[in-house]
Amino acid sequence: MARIVMKFGGTSMADLDRIRAAARRIAAQVAAGDQVAVVVSAMAGVTNQLVGWCDALMELHDPREYDSVVATGEQVTSGLLAIALQAIGIESRSFHGWQIPLHTDGAHGRARIGRIEPDALLASMEQGVVPVVAGFQGLGPEGRITTLGRGGSDTSAVALAAALKADRCDIYTDVDGVYTTDPRIVAKARKLDKITYEEMLELASVGAKVLQTRSVELAMKERVRVQVLSSFTDGPAPREGALPGTLVVDEDEIVEKEIVAGIAYSRDEARLTVRRVPDRPGIAASVFGPLAEANVNVDMIVQSTGADGSTDMTFTVGKSDLARAQVLLGEMRETIRYEELLCDPDVAKISIVGVGMRSHAGVASTMFRTLSERQINIQVISTSEIKVSVLIANDYTELAVRALHSAYDLDV
Amino acid sequence: MARIVMKFGGTSMADLDRIRAAARRIAAQVAAGDQVAVVVSAMAGVTNQLVGWCDALMELHDPREYDSVVATGEQVTSGLLAIALQAIGIESRSFHGWQIPLHTDGAHGRARIGRIEPDALLASMEQGVVPVVAGFQGLGPEGRITTLGRGGSDTSAVALAAALKADRCDIYTDVDGVYTTDPRIVAKARKLDKITYEEMLELASVGAKVLQTRSVELAMKERVRVQVLSSFTDGPAPREGALPGTLVVDEDEIVEKEIVAGIAYSRDEARLTVRRVPDRPGIAASVFGPLAEANVNVDMIVQSTGADGSTDMTFTVGKSDLARAQVLLGEMRETIRYEELLCDPDVAKISIVGVGMRSHAGVASTMFRTLSERQINIQVISTSEIKVSVLIANDYTELAVRALHSAYDLDV
Repeated sequence: MARIVMKFGGTSMADLDRIRAAARRIAAQVAAGDQVAVVVSAMAGVTNQLVGWCDALMELHDPREYDSVVATGEQVTSGLLAIALQAIGIESRSFHGWQIPLHTDGAHGRARIGRIEPDALLASMEQGVVPVVAGFQGLGPEGRITTLGRGGSDTSAVALAAALKADRCDIYTDVDGVYTTDPRIVAKARKLDKITYEEMLELASVGAKVLQTRSVELAMKERVRVQVLSSFTDGPAPREGALPGTLVVDEDEIVEKEIVAGIAYSRDEARLTVRRVPDRPGIAASVFGPLAEANVNVDMIVQSTGADGSTDMTFTVGKSDLARAQVLLGEMRETIRYEELLCDPDVAKISIVGVGMRSHAGVASTMFRTLSERQINIQVISTSEIKVSVLIANDYTELAVRALHSAYDLDV
Repeated sequence: MARIVMKFGGTSMADLDRIRAAARRIAAQVAAGDQVAVVVSAMAGVTNQLVGWCDALMELHDPREYDSVVATGEQVTSGLLAIALQAIGIESRSFHGWQIPLHTDGAHGRARIGRIEPDALLASMEQGVVPVVAGFQGLGPEGRITTLGRGGSDTSAVALAAALKADRCDIYTDVDGVYTTDPRIVAKARKLDKITYEEMLELASVGAKVLQTRSVELAMKERVRVQVLSSFTDGPAPREGALPGTLVVDEDEIVEKEIVAGIAYSRDEARLTVRRVPDRPGIAASVFGPLAEANVNVDMIVQSTGADGSTDMTFTVGKSDLARAQVLLGEMRETIRYEELLCDPDVAKISIVGVGMRSHAGVASTMFRTLSERQINIQVISTSEIKVSVLIANDYTELAVRALHSAYDLDV
């Protein structure tokens, strides 16, 4: 007997038929002899509607009231799924965040999970009553409802799996796992059976939107084994060995490590270049300090110094921050004394990710050679221990991803 | 300074514009120097949708899960109204049933209110923060959300007014008060400035759907002064003396009592006649016992004994119970030995209500004479201390109501 947390996302709760399908999947897991706790998101679209109402009433609305309103979406689906389970003979009951309780800090709208009291849920499972927990929500220090931020139900599920010492946390979504790259771009992309926390984290942070970054961080910290699977494919309950989805696990669990596990791309960034800044100590701080103060997140940075004592600084910001960054840098022209400000929103960041890079040389150079052979110019490079990212012109995104997918032998 | 509970119904919360209008009305009341607590219903139609989902998933669904699902409607409007108040500069916060707490018994779906702890709400009001309470819901003995049954927000408001020792409970709805009769039938119907609890109770029970019966009973028991007003008419906050609505109060507060305060009609009943039953002791019990056991509510009853030792029993049941009652009585034919079962769903109950009846003779005979003059046949009569009801053919409903409205000098 395993203890499993099953989490169903918004598309898996979208209507009564999908809710019934989730109930059947849970029933199959129970029939297989497992002890099950369930976490649900709101019906797809409902949270957006609730958020829209709050926004329309007041631009800077009270986050405590916002939380109280938007948390209702999960309250509805948790109750409906409990009823759907009872309808097919599985005893079940819903739990709101405050009923567990799942304590959080008081940062409404983006609360962090603190202590989770597992006793009520454990008692329910022991009695054969499947608990269905409203995801995304908790109880703040002042007895008010908090929410964890968008996508927070993944984090709820992982945190509950840790608190319940579950053997696995199954995340049901509208894709059947983590792919080597976006199958819409590369037809030969293949589903990964296993991926490490570190790889998943890097992929999540560069645009593979399967799991929320925070939930992966938490899973890594708490060593929760997470499985991503589709709730849209039919068939028997997932059993290990069969691996119907992708298992996100510790590196030790993966015997044959891929050198490159996946290739991700992101079109959410824009490039800025501050041309011919006098090269003196502290110049980077004087450029990036004001941006940070204005909450503009800077990602990739390169600095190239010319022979004449001036330097060019190139970096990327989120596309939604571009206009603000331009205004800020324009105001700083006098103090920094740069010659020219260039900006280009038509860029894409392509990343290769894999823990195998640690022990294999030449991984990055394969990337550079492959792109060079396709005449794709690299504008910026940044690397981490298990990731290499390059910035290229957006028009070459698909070509680059396909070429790299072949170059690293990832094609099916 | 008065302390006032303001309750807004579903049509007054139907969309963001209506919620903003409610906020302005509350702001005006606050500006007038009053201490205000607010109770809200769900957006019109939302509760029906939530109920529909529960029904669709399982016919006999768990009432605890049903409560958890349907209570969300008021949670949404309480948060939205708090935001709308903040948007116009009025400090406010929402309260769910469990946050007050408003304790109820464990009868999910139709819970009865027990102890209400007023401290949190009083503290909020003292600090100038208008509490917006989610109506219709409470906290059951096992820490789960309960609901009070349809229309329960009126009851929430009255109970809170009692717990807070409020000077008045203002119920905002889509009509501007209690009328002498349905203005859709009688153009000359007029709004009553004041009505007694007893009259309101009788009118509510015979089809005038302005206030839920239970809320009136509670108001009478706790001596809460209730005012019914429209949230759809504009103008300044209601002040006493002006009486923009109808005040439901103790008999002592009304100096000039009407003999007949109002005329109500109901088309929700059907008539059954069990013909030629052998007249023997216990026969009424043998007819009505099994109906009561099957939860068929019997309203008006007459029994007329013929010369031959047999008797006819005529009574009314709710139209939705008619088919069930027919089947039950059919099964009882052998044991009761009646000759014939007649039934007629095309009937209407017309009632005149007024505390003045107690001290005035001839009120009922005016009714009978008026109907007789219009050739309207009375099928059943039932009376209470302050009410006379007659059952007539449904086709004559409008004619009867209009004629009686004139006969009792109620026309404007």
